[in-house]
Amino acid sequence: MAIRRNIPTVAVDAMGGDDAPGAIIAGINQCLKEEQPFKVLLHGDEQQLEPFLDAYPLVREASTVKHADIAITMDETLSQALRRGRKTSSMWNAISDLNEGNAQMAVSAGNTGALLAMSNLILGTMEGIERPALAVLFPSVRSDVVFLDVGANLRPSSLQLAQFAIMGAAYARMILGIETPRVALLNIGIEEVKGTKAIRDAAQWLQNANLPMEFHGFVEGNDLTNGLCDVIVTGGFTGNVALKTAEGAADFIAYLMRSIIKRSMLARFGYLFMRDAFDMLWRKMEPQEFNGGVMLGLNRLVVKSHGHATSTGFSSALGVALEMSNLGLVDHVKSDLQNVDLQALETQANATNSMDE
Amino acid sequence: MAIRRNIPTVAVDAMGGDDAPGAIIAGINQCLKEEQPFKVLLHGDEQQLEPFLDAYPLVREASTVKHADIAITMDETLSQALRRGRKTSSMWNAISDLNEGNAQMAVSAGNTGALLAMSNLILGTMEGIERPALAVLFPSVRSDVVFLDVGANLRPSSLQLAQFAIMGAAYARMILGIETPRVALLNIGIEEVKGTKAIRDAAQWLQNANLPMEFHGFVEGNDLTNGLCDVIVTGGFTGNVALKTAEGAADFIAYLMRSIIKRSMLARFGYLFMRDAFDMLWRKMEPQEFNGGVMLGLNRLVVKSHGHATSTGFSSALGVALEMSNLGLVDHVKSDLQNVDLQALETQANATNSMDE
Repeated sequence: MAIRRNIPTVAVDAMGGDDAPGAIIAGINQCLKEEQPFKVLLHGDEQQLEPFLDAYPLVREASTVKHADIAITMDETLSQALRRGRKTSSMWNAISDLNEGNAQMAVSAGNTGALLAMSNLILGTMEGIERPALAVLFPSVRSDVVFLDVGANLRPSSLQLAQFAIMGAAYARMILGIETPRVALLNIGIEEVKGTKAIRDAAQWLQNANLPMEFHGFVEGNDLTNGLCDVIVTGGFTGNVALKTAEGAADFIAYLMRSIIKRSMLARFGYLFMRDAFDMLWRKMEPQEFNGGVMLGLNRLVVKSHGHATSTGFSSALGVALEMSNLGLVDHVKSDLQNVDLQALETQANATNSMDE
Repeated sequence: MAIRRNIPTVAVDAMGGDDAPGAIIAGINQCLKEEQPFKVLLHGDEQQLEPFLDAYPLVREASTVKHADIAITMDETLSQALRRGRKTSSMWNAISDLNEGNAQMAVSAGNTGALLAMSNLILGTMEGIERPALAVLFPSVRSDVVFLDVGANLRPSSLQLAQFAIMGAAYARMILGIETPRVALLNIGIEEVKGTKAIRDAAQWLQNANLPMEFHGFVEGNDLTNGLCDVIVTGGFTGNVALKTAEGAADFIAYLMRSIIKRSMLARFGYLFMRDAFDMLWRKMEPQEFNGGVMLGLNRLVVKSHGHATSTGFSSALGVALEMSNLGLVDHVKSDLQNVDLQALETQANATNSMDE
């Protein structure tokens, strides 16, 4: 019985994402089989969940179903979602469970804007942090890179960008084990004069502040994958587009390779010997395998899965949540932030008060 | 002698880009050898050009050197560049040559902001177009996709985004031969409520306007390469990052593949038979091979080469300029625009006047 106390509990919004609740429950099943044991507080429409729980007895066993009348849809505006979903939706209820300590983490594949707003309202942000940012681990030639924001704040201010950089560094310190992470702002050129005023201001502050990181300055899109930096910071609009563009480029190259192989007899023969190598490559390139973004800056651990996530994708997002919970991500970032003079940054920022325009 | 009249003339800014003037002159040499014959008005510092012209006699023969004291650097601000470079820089002079009809096109690998501003000042925009946009052809699983803006206007207004869409459609009609191009706006989700106000407004107008295109609505980053649309429109900041991110992803995959092959004896054996297929793939993935963005919306043809362009990259940009000149791009776009009620669009836009924020 002693061991059961250590089994973590995940609050899952079973109704969020394009293929909910089917892909969500199949994803929980996959994660239960492949990763560690965990308990689930399964928020959603009981009637809709029931047949899937029949299909996946492992999930039924691990879960407590918590009925919610409302499911937030992907095409709702923020105000619609908050009006309809406050205290009644599976998303709201999952975050509330987390807030009340019934779970150690919450995972949703639902509407990003709504998830961010509800998390903000219910859980609040860490002291000194204006807005949470969505951070992912992006593969590179050296090791993974912490990339944020990938969709939470479309056009952050310079102060917010600087805060993202500090949170990203704290994340990298924990997950990549690098004492002094190398941090950069994503821009359209590496020269100091490039980019919007918000980015240039953020760069100036990060350059001059005494922070536990090495501020590298600006990088460009192609630097995401070349291992130059450990943390790359941008606004949520551009970050989201960059992330999905990289996924699309990988798909495109896989398509090209397959069509070239199909056309050449010689290449088809060679492929027989290279199949294992290619299988490894396809796996490395499969975005569902590294799905799961952390909402950095909240007082509790919320993980956002891609809205298009398959069961494999949702399982991967659950895996991220479990790993970050085991590592104590939120506490790590919080304690790191206590060593940073965020107030000084804010004073500087308010003096300029530039928006990303 | 009759045939010489048809040889086009290119005004080249020989001092722009990271490896100027060496890579520029080597690029002209490569293009002269591989493409059609053309004449060059070579703008730059005579003393710096001289040794390279010694090294490339083919370029010397095709060129008239036009000395300029000033070279605009990559790290100059717009106001610095205009103050220093007005009427004295190789960039300014190359565009002036184009304006005076001494050349049919101008090509520069220099500072994008300066090139845009000088082109705007000297050549002016087409009637009804507020700002030119930088358009590239992006490879996809179906055919090339017209992608704009990739760096000219960091945060365009909704009106400007709509104008980019109309110009992109005109470009696609000419270069892809599609009568009714499918046009989309790049966003962080396909739902109508997603994105900034500027994007949503632009979408609404494009949806309701009677335009010679099929407006598809919103697409995401991964739709750049899947052939869903013929024209994809975004602001210059995000477009630039997306373009370079795709390049970086391609490099990363090539790196992964090489390292997997290196580790496996079997794969190395298979590779012997697949070498030709891989060579074809590397070529398709090489960004220098499809370098060269067109400044759409100017009254004359200006092509921007990547600042990091090698000689192959600059040769490719020259090839784009020659092809677009042969096809009569500027006249095509102009005549297409005459069939569109840009005034109505502007009236609508002024009523809302949303900036991308």
